[in-house]
Amino acid sequence: MRDDSEIYTKEYFEDSLRQVMDFLNRHKLMEDLVQRQDMPHEQAVEHLVHKQSLTELSNKLDELHPADVAYILEALPLEDRLLVWDLVRAERDGDILLEVSEAVRESLIASMDNRELLAAAHGLDTDEIAELAPDLPKDVVQELMKSLDEAKRQQVESSLAYDEDSVGAFMDYDFVTIRADVTLEVTLRYLRMLGDLPSHADKLFVVERDRRVVGVLPLKRLLVHDPDVHVAAVMSDEPVVFHPSDKVADAAQAFERYDLISAPVVDPRDRLVGRLTVDEMMDYIRAEAEEDMLAAAGLREEEDLFTTVWKAAKNRWMWLAVNLCTALFASRVVGAFEGSIEKLAALAALMPIVAGMGGNSGNQTSTLVVRGFALGLINRDNAMRLLGKELGIALLNGTVWGGVMGVVAYLLYDNPALGGVMASAMLLNLLVAALAGHFAPALLKRLGSDPAYGSAILTTFITDSMGFFIFLGLATVVLL
Amino acid sequence: MRDDSEIYTKEYFEDSLRQVMDFLNRHKLMEDLVQRQDMPHEQAVEHLVHKQSLTELSNKLDELHPADVAYILEALPLEDRLLVWDLVRAERDGDILLEVSEAVRESLIASMDNRELLAAAHGLDTDEIAELAPDLPKDVVQELMKSLDEAKRQQVESSLAYDEDSVGAFMDYDFVTIRADVTLEVTLRYLRMLGDLPSHADKLFVVERDRRVVGVLPLKRLLVHDPDVHVAAVMSDEPVVFHPSDKVADAAQAFERYDLISAPVVDPRDRLVGRLTVDEMMDYIRAEAEEDMLAAAGLREEEDLFTTVWKAAKNRWMWLAVNLCTALFASRVVGAFEGSIEKLAALAALMPIVAGMGGNSGNQTSTLVVRGFALGLINRDNAMRLLGKELGIALLNGTVWGGVMGVVAYLLYDNPALGGVMASAMLLNLLVAALAGHFAPALLKRLGSDPAYGSAILTTFITDSMGFFIFLGLATVVLL
Repeated sequence: MRDDSEIYTKEYFEDSLRQVMDFLNRHKLMEDLVQRQDMPHEQAVEHLVHKQSLTELSNKLDELHPADVAYILEALPLEDRLLVWDLVRAERDGDILLEVSEAVRESLIASMDNRELLAAAHGLDTDEIAELAPDLPKDVVQELMKSLDEAKRQQVESSLAYDEDSVGAFMDYDFVTIRADVTLEVTLRYLRMLGDLPSHADKLFVVERDRRVVGVLPLKRLLVHDPDVHVAAVMSDEPVVFHPSDKVADAAQAFERYDLISAPVVDPRDRLVGRLTVDEMMDYIRAEAEEDMLAAAGLREEEDLFTTVWKAAKNRWMWLAVNLCTALFASRVVGAFEGSIEKLAALAALMPIVAGMGGNSGNQTSTLVVRGFALGLINRDNAMRLLGKELGIALLNGTVWGGVMGVVAYLLYDNPALGGVMASAMLLNLLVAALAGHFAPALLKRLGSDPAYGSAILTTFITDSMGFFIFLGLATVVLL
Repeated sequence: MRDDSEIYTKEYFEDSLRQVMDFLNRHKLMEDLVQRQDMPHEQAVEHLVHKQSLTELSNKLDELHPADVAYILEALPLEDRLLVWDLVRAERDGDILLEVSEAVRESLIASMDNRELLAAAHGLDTDEIAELAPDLPKDVVQELMKSLDEAKRQQVESSLAYDEDSVGAFMDYDFVTIRADVTLEVTLRYLRMLGDLPSHADKLFVVERDRRVVGVLPLKRLLVHDPDVHVAAVMSDEPVVFHPSDKVADAAQAFERYDLISAPVVDPRDRLVGRLTVDEMMDYIRAEAEEDMLAAAGLREEEDLFTTVWKAAKNRWMWLAVNLCTALFASRVVGAFEGSIEKLAALAALMPIVAGMGGNSGNQTSTLVVRGFALGLINRDNAMRLLGKELGIALLNGTVWGGVMGVVAYLLYDNPALGGVMASAMLLNLLVAALAGHFAPALLKRLGSDPAYGSAILTTFITDSMGFFIFLGLATVVLL
C-alpha cells in the first residue's frame, strides 16, 4: 500500500487547498514584478521559477481526484479559479464540471469556448451529458447531440425529459443484463468477455427478450454458487425496482431503508429503462440537506462563495422582502397601542421578550411537525394527540418562564401588576406559538407548498404579532 | 417479478401505517365493548373477529421489512406502539431496535424483560450489539458478553471503546480477506466454499500473514479477469483506507467524494481491524442533517413524537433559557431609552423592524459562513474577501430596504426626520449584521464549539441589541 493512502481527511483537503493558494500567491507576486518592467536581472531568474511554479501546480492538480479539484475550485475567488481551471488537463474537465456546484459550474462554463466544451463533454456517459446539458450553451448541446449515435441520443433526450426531482433524471444506463436460462458458468464467461463492469454494479439485471425485468442476480450469489446452476435458480425474483416518474426523494429513502447499492428502473410494463445507484442517492441526500439549511435562512439557491454582490443580493431579496412585510404588520400592531406606550414606556422594553420567546417556542414545534410530515409520521389519527402534547409543553414552559419573567419585570419596574401582565402574556403567547407551530406547516402543505420552507416565517409572523397584541392589549386593559 | 414489488413509495409507507392504525382502532373499539361486560351475544362473535384482527395485524407486520416496522413504531403513541411491538416476532426484535430512533428505542427496551432483550440481541452482529449496548440495562449487557466467544467479545468491547463520532464506532467486522499470492481461480473456489459474502462486500481485502492490508480486490476485477492470474496482479494497491480514530464525518465525505461502497479500516501499522460500508455512511449523513435541523430550533436531541410533556420540555429548556437571557439584555437596551420612547411612541413601533431585518440578514451571512467552515472552504486567505462581499451586499440591501422603510416611516408618521433615522438605522444595522454573521461562527469555532449550533443565537443577539441601540440612539440624538 502506498504511503499517502490517507487521501480522505479534512486536513488533506485543506492542505491541498493551501498548497494551491500558495502557488497562486507566488504566481501573482511574480506577475506584479514582471508588470513593473524594471525587473532586475536576478529576478528574471525568479520569473522562470514562477513559470515552474505553474507547472508544479498543474502537476499537483493532476494528482488530485476530480472531486478534490472541484472542492478547490469552490474555495477560490473567480480570477484564481479560472487560472487553476486553465491548468487542469482538458480530458478531466467533464468529470470536474459534474462535481462542482451549480454556481461554480456556471462561472467555469462561461470561461470556455464551444470547442473546449465539446471536448469536455466528449468522454462523459449519457446520463452525465444530460446533467450538464441545461448549463451548456444551446449550440453546444446541438453539436453534442449530433456527435452521439442514435441510442445514446435517445438516452440523453429521455433523461432531459424527466422532471428534475424524478428518478428518471437520476438514473444512468450502465447495466449488464443476462438471461434467466443460462448457467452461472456462461454468465462468468460473458463477464470476462465484457472485460469490465460498470461502477456500483453489485448485481446483474435478469431480463426477458423484450427487456422485461424478471429478477436480479447479485454478484455475491454469482460468486458463491456452483457454476453449473442456472441464473433462474439463484436470482432474486423480488427485487426493489423504481419507475422513472417516481420521486427521487422516495427512492433515496428506499435505498437508505433497504441498504441498496443499485436497482433497476423499469417502465410500467416492467421493461428495463435504466439504473439507480447509491452514490447518486447519497449525493441527493446531502444536496437536499444543504438546500434545506440554506432555504431556512432564505437563500433561494446555493451561492458560490465569491459570487458577485449583485447576484447574491438578488438571491436574498425575496426573503428580506417577505420579512419586511411581516415586520411591518407587527409594527402596526404596536402602533395601535402607542397611547399606552407613551404612558408606560416599560411596555416597549418588555414586549420584544414576549414576541421573541413565542417565536423560539413556536419554531421548536414547527420543526418537529415539518420533520413528521417529511417522514410521513403524521396523519389524521395522531395529529390531535401531537397538538395536545405541544400545548402541554407550552403550558409548562409558559408557566415556568412566564413566572420568571413576571418576577423580573416586577423587580425591574417595582410594579406587581406589570409583572402579572408579563407572566400572563408569556403564557398565552407560548400557547399561541404551539398552535401556530402546529398548524402553519399543515396549512402550507394544504396550499401545496413545501412546509419546510415557509413554516418558520409564518410561525414567527403569528407569534410576533400576537405577542405584541396580547401583551400590549392586556397591559392597556389591566394597567392603564 | 412479483406484483407488489413497488415497496418503496411514500404512499406504500403511509398505507401500511394507516392499515396498522385501522387494526388498532378496531381492536380498541372491541376492548371497550368487552370492558362494558354487557356485550350481547352477537357481539361476542365480533369479539372473536377482533382477536382475528390482531392475527391479521401480526401477519401484516411479518410482511414488512424491519425498517418499515420501525417507521410504523415511530408514528404510534406509546400504548399503541407497545401493542404492536408485542405482535412482532421475537427474532425480528433486534433488527427493528437497530432501525428505530434513540427515543423510541428507549421506550421499547423499557417494555422488555431481560430474557426478551437477550433473545433480541442474540442474532445480531458484534457491531450491532455494540450499537445497542449503551441503551441496554447493565446486567443484560454483562449476560450478553458472557454468551459471546472471546473474539466477538473483543470486537464488541473495542467498538464500545471508540468515540461515538469516530470511524471505530461505525465499522463492522464482516469482511473476507485473501492473500496476494493466490490465483483468482483459488479465490473463486474459496468464496464458493464460504457459501455467502457479507452485505455490501464489493471488494475483498488482500492481507499479509500479519493482517497488514496490501490492497483490495474489487469483485468486478475478480469477475472479469482470467482465473489463472494472481490476486497481486489485478488488485488495487492504492485503496482508500480509514483509521478507527478518524472522524466519521470525514469518512462519510470521502465515501461521497470517491463513490465508495466499502473500505478497510486499519490500525497505525496498516493491519486490518474492520470495515466501513456505504449504508452506515448514508445513515450517518441523514442523521447529521436531521440533528442539524433540530438543533437549529434548539431541540437538543431527537424527540420521539409522543414523548412525555415533561421530557420534551426539558429537551427545549436550555434553548429557551439562553434566548430569554439575550432577549432580556436587548430589553435593557430599550429600557435605557424609555425617556425617548415616552416622547415619541412611534419609536417603539418601528424598532422591531430594524432589529428583525438585521437578524434575518445576519443569519443569511452566518449560514453561508457555517457551510463554508463545514466544507473547509474558508481559510485565512479568502476570509477577508468573503467579508468584503458580505459588507457589499449589506450596503446594497441596507440602501434599498432602508430607503423603502424610511419612506414608509415618513408617510406613516408624517415626520421626514424620523424617516431619515429609520433609513440610516436599517443600513447601519445590516452592516452590523454582516459583521456579526461573519465573525460569530469564527468566534464559536475558536472557542471550540460547533459553529453550526450557536451562530444563529449569537448573530441574532447582536443584531437585536445593536438594532435597538442604533435606532433609538440615533432617534434620541437627531429627533429629541
